Amino acid sequence: MNEFELIERFFTRPARHAALGIGDDCAFIAPSAGQLFAISTDMLLEGRHFLPGADPFGLGHKTLAVNLSDCAAVAARPRYALLAGALPDADPDWVGAFASGLFALADRYDVELIGGDTTQGPRTFCVTILGEVPPGEALLRSGAQVSDMIWVSGEIGRARLGLALERDEAIAPPPAALHAPALAAMHRPEPRVELGIALRGIGTSGIDISDGLIGDLGHILERSAVGAEIHLPRIPASAWLHERALDPQTASWGLAFVLAGGDDYELCFTAPVAKAELVRAAGRAAGVAVTPIGRIRREPGLTVLAADGTPLDVATVKSFDHFG
Amino acid sequence: MNEFELIERFFTRPARHAALGIGDDCAFIAPSAGQLFAISTDMLLEGRHFLPGADPFGLGHKTLAVNLSDCAAVAARPRYALLAGALPDADPDWVGAFASGLFALADRYDVELIGGDTTQGPRTFCVTILGEVPPGEALLRSGAQVSDMIWVSGEIGRARLGLALERDEAIAPPPAALHAPALAAMHRPEPRVELGIALRGIGTSGIDISDGLIGDLGHILERSAVGAEIHLPRIPASAWLHERALDPQTASWGLAFVLAGGDDYELCFTAPVAKAELVRAAGRAAGVAVTPIGRIRREPGLTVLAADGTPLDVATVKSFDHFG
Repeated sequence: MNEFELIERFFTRPARHAALGIGDDCAFIAPSAGQLFAISTDMLLEGRHFLPGADPFGLGHKTLAVNLSDCAAVAARPRYALLAGALPDADPDWVGAFASGLFALADRYDVELIGGDTTQGPRTFCVTILGEVPPGEALLRSGAQVSDMIWVSGEIGRARLGLALERDEAIAPPPAALHAPALAAMHRPEPRVELGIALRGIGTSGIDISDGLIGDLGHILERSAVGAEIHLPRIPASAWLHERALDPQTASWGLAFVLAGGDDYELCFTAPVAKAELVRAAGRAAGVAVTPIGRIRREPGLTVLAADGTPLDVATVKSFDHFG
Repeated sequence: MNEFELIERFFTRPARHAALGIGDDCAFIAPSAGQLFAISTDMLLEGRHFLPGADPFGLGHKTLAVNLSDCAAVAARPRYALLAGALPDADPDWVGAFASGLFALADRYDVELIGGDTTQGPRTFCVTILGEVPPGEALLRSGAQVSDMIWVSGEIGRARLGLALERDEAIAPPPAALHAPALAAMHRPEPRVELGIALRGIGTSGIDISDGLIGDLGHILERSAVGAEIHLPRIPASAWLHERALDPQTASWGLAFVLAGGDDYELCFTAPVAKAELVRAAGRAAGVAVTPIGRIRREPGLTVLAADGTPLDVATVKSFDHFG
C-alpha cells in the first residue's frame, strides 16, 4: 500500500461543509456567516506525547482530542481538521484502527477532515484544527478580571496518575477503583467542547489544562496581568490524591500530580462572581462538573493555600516544559 | 531557554491582519470579503525531507516555501501560517537562524505567523498555510480539459541534481555552472506564488511539482479523468541533463531526474490553446519562464514522446512515494 492508496482508503471522505476537501493541493473553506475561525496546531511524538506500542484506536482519538480541547478552551465549535502524519510503515491494520479512533471522535463533533500529509518516519502526528466562534465571544487567556472566580472542569491529576501506572513509576499504589479512570483520562481524554461553548458570554478567560493546573493558570495570569489565590483542598482531584499531596511521605509527587499533572484536557476558566450560577448551569448543560478553586486578585503571582489558610511552598512544583 | 521563552523570543510578532495571533490556545482569523481560505499542511522530517546538518536559515526558508508552493498551485495568495516543530534542543543560535530564514520569506509575501507548537524530539516541522482565493478562481487538479496545453514553470530536475551533489551520488559529474543553481533549487526553492495568482482565469488546472513531473501531472490526469502526451525534448531541463536522459550510459538516472525528480516546486498547469499568449504574459508578469510541454488528450494514460515522436518506456521511472 503506497501513501496515496493509504490516504484514499482510510482518510478520504466526500467534502461536507468544505468547498473542496482532501485530494487537491489545498482544501477550500470559509467560516459560517458572522463567525471567525479559531485555529490551532499541535504536534504529538511517540515517546513524548504517547508511548511506543500505544493502542492505535486510542491514539487516533487522543490526537484529535488534544486539538478539540484547544477549540474548547476558546469557546469555539470545532469544524475542520487537517492531519499530517509520519509513520514507520503503511501497516493497514494500524492505520485503519488509528483512523477509526480519530473519525469516531470527529463524527461526535461533526468535524470534517479536509487535508493532510503522510510521510515515512518516526511516528508523529500534527493536527491543525479550525473552529468557529462569533467575534467577541471567544474565551481568551487575557480576559481575567480582578475578583473573578477561578473554575476547573472535571477531575484533575487523573491523566498524570494514568501515566504513572503505565510507566510503573515508584509511587504509592493507588486504589484499584482509580486505575481505569486514570488510564482512560490518559489515553482517551474528553475535550470539553460543549462546556466551552456553553461558557460564551459567561466566562472572562479560559485555557485547557495540558501542561498542568498551575502552569496553565499561570498563562491566564500573565496574559491578564493579574494574580490569583487558589485553595488546594478545593481542587477537584480524588480523595486519595489529596491525601498523597498532604502526606509528607508522598507530597513530593502527590502535590505535583494535583498542581502540575499534565494531559487532563480539562478547562480552567474565570467568570465574575455574579455569574457563578450561570457557570454551574453551563456545567450541567454540558454534563461536566465545574468547581470553583479560587479568585483572581490584583497582586501578581499565584498563591496556593492549604486547608488552614497558610500558603504552600510550590516553588519546586513545575509544569511541563518541553525543553526543561 | 525554555519552550515559552523560545516562542516569545523568535516567533512572536504583533498580530497584523489576524484578529488575534500567537499567545492563546487559538488564533482568530477570517478571509477577506469575497475570498475563500485555501488551506494545506506539510510535514518535513530530518533525514527524509532535509539532511542532518542542513543550514538552519535555508531550512527555515524551505519549510515555509513548500507550503507557499501549495498556495501557488491553487492560485491562492498566502496570508497566514502556523508552525509546529520538534527540536532536539533549544539552541538559540540554530532557532534564531531558522526563524530568520522563515520570516525573510514570510515577509516577502506578507504572510503572518499566527500560531504553533514546540516540542522536544527529532527535528520535524509541520506548517499549515492559509491563502485566499475568490470562489471559482482556484486552479484545481480536476479542471484539465481535452486539448488543453500542458505547461511547466521554471526549470525541472535542478533540485534532484542538487540532492545528488549533496549526497555525492555516483552520477556523471555535472558542469561546474550547474552546481550552484542545483543546490539553490534544493535548499532555497522559490514558490511560484505570483505565477499562480497571475494564472487565475487563464489556467484550467494546476499542481506544484514536489514528487516529480510525471507523478504530479499524473494527479491532474487522474482527477480530471483525462490523459496526456508530453514531449521529452520540450521539458525545461538543462541541456546537460537532457543529454544524460538520452545517453544509454546515463539514462537510468538522467531520465528519472527529468521526469521524476522531486522538490523543484515549479508549477505544472493546463490552459486552453487559445490562452497560450495569456499564459506567456502571466509568466512575464511573474518573472518566471513558462514552457509548453504537451497536450491533454481524451485517451487515459501519460505518453512521453522522444524527439523522433516515438513513445519512451517510462514504466520504471517512478515519482517519489513515501512508502515505496
